[in-house]
Amino acid sequence: VIALGLCLVAAVAFDPSPITTFRLNGTVAAVVTVFDSKLNVDYSVINAQAAQLMQQGIRSVFVCGTTGESLSLTVPERKLIAEAWRSAATQYGLTLIVHVGTATPLESVDLAIHAQQIGADAIATMATFFFKPSTASDVAAFLAQISAAAPKIPLYYYYIPSMTGVSISVADILLAATSSHHVPTLRGAKFSDADLYEFGRCVGLRDTYGSPFNLLFGRDEMLLGALAIGADGAVGSTYNLPFMAPIYNRLLSAYASGNMTAAQAEQARSRELVYLMKSYGGGALKAMLDLSGVLGGLPRPPFVALTPTQLSSLKQDLVKNGFLS
Amino acid sequence: VIALGLCLVAAVAFDPSPITTFRLNGTVAAVVTVFDSKLNVDYSVINAQAAQLMQQGIRSVFVCGTTGESLSLTVPERKLIAEAWRSAATQYGLTLIVHVGTATPLESVDLAIHAQQIGADAIATMATFFFKPSTASDVAAFLAQISAAAPKIPLYYYYIPSMTGVSISVADILLAATSSHHVPTLRGAKFSDADLYEFGRCVGLRDTYGSPFNLLFGRDEMLLGALAIGADGAVGSTYNLPFMAPIYNRLLSAYASGNMTAAQAEQARSRELVYLMKSYGGGALKAMLDLSGVLGGLPRPPFVALTPTQLSSLKQDLVKNGFLS
Amino acid sequence: VIALGLCLVAAVAFDPSPITTFRLNGTVAAVVTVFDSKLNVDYSVINAQAAQLMQQGIRSVFVCGTTGESLSLTVPERKLIAEAWRSAATQYGLTLIVHVGTATPLESVDLAIHAQQIGADAIATMATFFFKPSTASDVAAFLAQISAAAPKIPLYYYYIPSMTGVSISVADILLAATSSHHVPTLRGAKFSDADLYEFGRCVGLRDTYGSPFNLLFGRDEMLLGALAIGADGAVGSTYNLPFMAPIYNRLLSAYASGNMTAAQAEQARSRELVYLMKSYGGGALKAMLDLSGVLGGLPRPPFVALTPTQLSSLKQDLVKNGFLS
Amino acid sequence: VIALGLCLVAAVAFDPSPITTFRLNGTVAAVVTVFDSKLNVDYSVINAQAAQLMQQGIRSVFVCGTTGESLSLTVPERKLIAEAWRSAATQYGLTLIVHVGTATPLESVDLAIHAQQIGADAIATMATFFFKPSTASDVAAFLAQISAAAPKIPLYYYYIPSMTGVSISVADILLAATSSHHVPTLRGAKFSDADLYEFGRCVGLRDTYGSPFNLLFGRDEMLLGALAIGADGAVGSTYNLPFMAPIYNRLLSAYASGNMTAAQAEQARSRELVYLMKSYGGGALKAMLDLSGVLGGLPRPPFVALTPTQLSSLKQDLVKNGFLS
Repeated sequence: VIALGLCLVAAVAFDPSPITTFRLNGTVAAVVTVFDSKLNVDYSVINAQAAQLMQQGIRSVFVCGTTGESLSLTVPERKLIAEAWRSAATQYGLTLIVHVGTATPLESVDLAIHAQQIGADAIATMATFFFKPSTASDVAAFLAQISAAAPKIPLYYYYIPSMTGVSISVADILLAATSSHHVPTLRGAKFSDADLYEFGRCVGLRDTYGSPFNLLFGRDEMLLGALAIGADGAVGSTYNLPFMAPIYNRLLSAYASGNMTAAQAEQARSRELVYLMKSYGGGALKAMLDLSGVLGGLPRPPFVALTPTQLSSLKQDLVKNGFLS
Repeated sequence: VIALGLCLVAAVAFDPSPITTFRLNGTVAAVVTVFDSKLNVDYSVINAQAAQLMQQGIRSVFVCGTTGESLSLTVPERKLIAEAWRSAATQYGLTLIVHVGTATPLESVDLAIHAQQIGADAIATMATFFFKPSTASDVAAFLAQISAAAPKIPLYYYYIPSMTGVSISVADILLAATSSHHVPTLRGAKFSDADLYEFGRCVGLRDTYGSPFNLLFGRDEMLLGALAIGADGAVGSTYNLPFMAPIYNRLLSAYASGNMTAAQAEQARSRELVYLMKSYGGGALKAMLDLSGVLGGLPRPPFVALTPTQLSSLKQDLVKNGFLS
Repeated sequence: VIALGLCLVAAVAFDPSPITTFRLNGTVAAVVTVFDSKLNVDYSVINAQAAQLMQQGIRSVFVCGTTGESLSLTVPERKLIAEAWRSAATQYGLTLIVHVGTATPLESVDLAIHAQQIGADAIATMATFFFKPSTASDVAAFLAQISAAAPKIPLYYYYIPSMTGVSISVADILLAATSSHHVPTLRGAKFSDADLYEFGRCVGLRDTYGSPFNLLFGRDEMLLGALAIGADGAVGSTYNLPFMAPIYNRLLSAYASGNMTAAQAEQARSRELVYLMKSYGGGALKAMLDLSGVLGGLPRPPFVALTPTQLSSLKQDLVKNGFLS
Repeated sequence: VIALGLCLVAAVAFDPSPITTFRLNGTVAAVVTVFDSKLNVDYSVINAQAAQLMQQGIRSVFVCGTTGESLSLTVPERKLIAEAWRSAATQYGLTLIVHVGTATPLESVDLAIHAQQIGADAIATMATFFFKPSTASDVAAFLAQISAAAPKIPLYYYYIPSMTGVSISVADILLAATSSHHVPTLRGAKFSDADLYEFGRCVGLRDTYGSPFNLLFGRDEMLLGALAIGADGAVGSTYNLPFMAPIYNRLLSAYASGNMTAAQAEQARSRELVYLMKSYGGGALKAMLDLSGVLGGLPRPPFVALTPTQLSSLKQDLVKNGFLS
């Protein structure tokens, strides 16, 4: 069951046709979108982002997700970002997952068509979150619509109830999508919630009932718990941070070799980092990237960049806790 | 204080420059968007919708709002709908408020620019609801951005926490927008929530502190309570229904003349209708329009059209309760 | 429909047998429980509380409710408080409603038996709030149990979802209690929530369907809205404050005479007071009582008494806003 | 760090004075309270319950917790139950933890005094849940009050936000209780929530900062995730079921020996059981006990016993899934 190797193994992106063999393992970076001083997207840095992630041992990127400030981007901006990442991902050997979730089904369809056109390796979508689905069948019907728009590449359902307010059972959605609805490209889920019972039900569908779902966990700060329940891999924001890469690498290695004490020590480090990040608010991740020599850029509202005072304080905290030297 | 006349008085839309004298009274219809059998927007019926509303005594329309399935529409569709309504509203003497709220600030800016270009009488926007604002100041900053995009027409803040998850004090937002932030076009609020303490605080800003806010209430089924607290008018979905028009007209007249017993009897009728509407789910309003001889059309997902059986049952219920004959 | 007289009319407590004619009008004070410096109940001040309320024009008291810190009291304390109030209420001509709501049905039964024994004029109970009911029928079954324990006195259902987490439709509960369940003493509801649609549904049961429910509203700061919808009277905390009595008296008089502008001005004063009260936290009401010459005493945890600095600031605010001189 | 042995090791209850060495490991059964046909507590079956649990390999019992329908019991009933369990636990060598949480601090104080008097090995309490604490310091102050009432036995904080609505950080509470407040008997927490980041922060306090906290997890259906994060043991309802005992024993053994695949298979079985249990509602656990030959008895309202039809269906489901033969 456990698919995590001793080291970070690249997700192998075959010819799109064999969708069911597509598989993401290890840590997938939910990349940030860099905005310049006028809050315009800085597409020029995407190549450098890709190079940096490759160097950190990351083999897959999740583009225009929540960390990427998806819903602060217009549809045209999201397309341009996806194109720039397609190019960079190819250059650096990264697997590219493009998030197409929006509040509006037709916009997501548009993004899905585009993602397939530019050669994305996979797409992911949230449920719509203004007019919210009521049932698993509602969500499956929406997934069918997205699948039809990009019929040649794998599709992941992205579950993030803290943002969407949609907390319909993911296992029920996976079941509905593979039984009463036609979602042939459905490949798995990115699960960004703490409920490991629900996540475990998805694992049960994969392991017990033979559906070849690929299950990725989205809360970095409790990854080890999800691995124990049966996660295939992880998608998150802190995997972007250069100083966190060795920590997560060691966590995955320790877990794979059955050294839970060592794995727990690394998860403790991850919690410390996340605690710091939360303390400094929505602009903290980008500030941490800047502080670690990787361009983070400004966030778009409603997030705010750290003040110079906050930045200085954050730096001290990172040094004091041994994340930066 | 009470601005509601004995009959429905048209909102007088002056030359856009005197924004502070713009004022909506009585009932404003939050109009539906009609979709055809392929779920495409049917722009051709907008003129007839306008004609019908005028005949019902409605003098203002709120376009592409929640009732209009705003977030099930793409940005280009919203622009075309606004244009069609501009034409129809001019022909039938209706005041046109275009809702520009989306999850993405730049999309709302785009819609606001367009609304001013086509000559909308006013615009309204919700707070962004994926990346949610944390403070009244965050919302005011967003309103400033929208105001700058359409500097010549009045702007309303649209408060609907049940859909957005944003429950920041409206009074605090109005205060922030008129003190620390520059939102010169801010004209008032559409308040779609039951909390009449919070609504009353907005009324207090208008009455006690002299800010000329125009305060519209958005929950038809408890309108009388809001009038008593000090609402200037109402924006809602049930004002579209031909058989409800005389009921609301009598409610407003009775209230204006101090006949609370009569007004309460009409509000009771409104509650009965809303109770029925809720019982039949998200497709009920459009079905009721169809049943009353006004084209409602299909809803887009996740809402579903009533089945023939449900439609028949709804018709019986409307007849049994005296709404239809 | 409107039962509020020009002045505060006493609720007339008949011989308990004619339960259906029992009726509360005007403002009912949800009285505080006074704790001494050791946080013991000070029963000795209850007579003075009753005298003060009578002098303010209050004719009914709601004892051991949320304002009375019900759930910070043991069952024996609640019985002693009820007894002391029975004596004081008789002396000062007040109608006595004893709240018997707890988390544990058998404790509420015990309190209900006691309340009838000591001659309470009526009782009220919330739904249980740890093991929460799931349906209106569940709540009606619980009301039946309480009714059987005190079969000779009227029973009110106390709806306060912000505290209990139970938001089951009150109208559905009233219907269930009078149809499928046997709750012969059920007399009405104390409704402490902003949803005037739901409250209106209860009003509809009273007016349209002939059930003689007595409907009391529990959010002082939006009382006028509830009156407009059809409230018979009000139960709340701010009615205890001597300097608020003339304000609420004028509000009720203005409403009864159809002078909505005047009524709105008084509601505005009420909102200002509530805004202040909320700003100073859970100990503010008792501090305001102290500042207005009526003993408030200390609150029990988790509420905290105001610090001397806060008390001084609160006093200034009350003077500045014209509540105290 | 991992304290779970290959088999279920009894919690060793020393002389109460060395509180800091008290430690619970493995699975603790949150026992049910058996009610007879008149819904009275059946104290006579407690000895048999203890005997059965001992036979299943359980070494500790959590009495009058949520599974024990705590808040459906009066204070006197809870004392009698605790006494009966004290006797039974001594006879069968079980460690006895008495839950004293209520909505009313003085009632919890009363129960804590009693628990110490009868020789309970430890006590646990929730935060009060009607008048809710606002800060970690509020909760710590309450824990100090309980600790002072039972100064000779260990105290656990019981975190169950789904029932109490109190979601204040447990780690912050543990920190406040051991720094600014005097809670000398505080020994750890029973954590009944999915948030393994927060749970991990508590683990961090134990491991990194040297506070000797004993951390028990309360959601059986995701136990393996909590073990991976660092749980010392578990308290839950499904540990009562005879047919689940071998499953959880194997889960703990597999985890301890690093065989995650085997542990995951057992957790999958646990999820299947919990899924069934949830499907049949609040009376399901007791019905399952009955079906497995252990007296479960009736539940008190608002929970309802299964109908004969439901019981028959449940039995079939348990057989079909291999839980019963």
